[in-house]
Amino acid sequence: MDRIYYITLLVDIYGELLTDKQRDVMTAYYFDDLSLNEIGEKQGITRQAVQDMIKRTEKLLDQYESRLMLVEKHIKRKSCIEKALKLIDNEEHYSSDTIDAVKNLLKEIPD
Amino acid sequence: MDRIYYITLLVDIYGELLTDKQRDVMTAYYFDDLSLNEIGEKQGITRQAVQDMIKRTEKLLDQYESRLMLVEKHIKRKSCIEKALKLIDNEEHYSSDTIDAVKNLLKEIPD
Repeated sequence: MDRIYYITLLVDIYGELLTDKQRDVMTAYYFDDLSLNEIGEKQGITRQAVQDMIKRTEKLLDQYESRLMLVEKHIKRKSCIEKALKLIDNEEHYSSDTIDAVKNLLKEIPD
Repeated sequence: MDRIYYITLLVDIYGELLTDKQRDVMTAYYFDDLSLNEIGEKQGITRQAVQDMIKRTEKLLDQYESRLMLVEKHIKRKSCIEKALKLIDNEEHYSSDTIDAVKNLLKEIPD
């Protein structure tokens, strides 16, 4: 997976565990695509301080993920649900094979 | 929901965000049903210190839940999956009503 997309998922999922400032800086950088200079001006800190904060926050987000694995579970869950919906949508009549596959996907959805 | 059951869910889900000592004390109290005295002896701290640690850890777990709502999502997810599996298991032939209900449940599964 693309590292930038991965970080946006981390921010989406663990954003509530960050401070307001950490979340603002990460959002400005990864979602709004502002430059380090632009973010520094908005936050009243130096370009270097912005860069340090992004690095530290990424490390923190990686630590949360290594403990809770919510991004990994989110991706697996999404994949199971999409596969199950696709199986259902592809058929007019439902064979027991299709239904068994849907059941298995339901059971595989991570908690 | 029973508060004790609720706390065991919190510990299960957010346990990795606790320190080893916090997790050990919570597990001893809520899962292994040890007394405050017994836990204090094992941990080499007073009964009062155990009680304080349990209170502080519960507060911390409540804060995590208020931010990430993982217990709430876990319960909703489990309910959607169980309902969908029940709908599938209850039928021999699958009507479009049943299939629609399963589809809706799949779409309702919280992320």
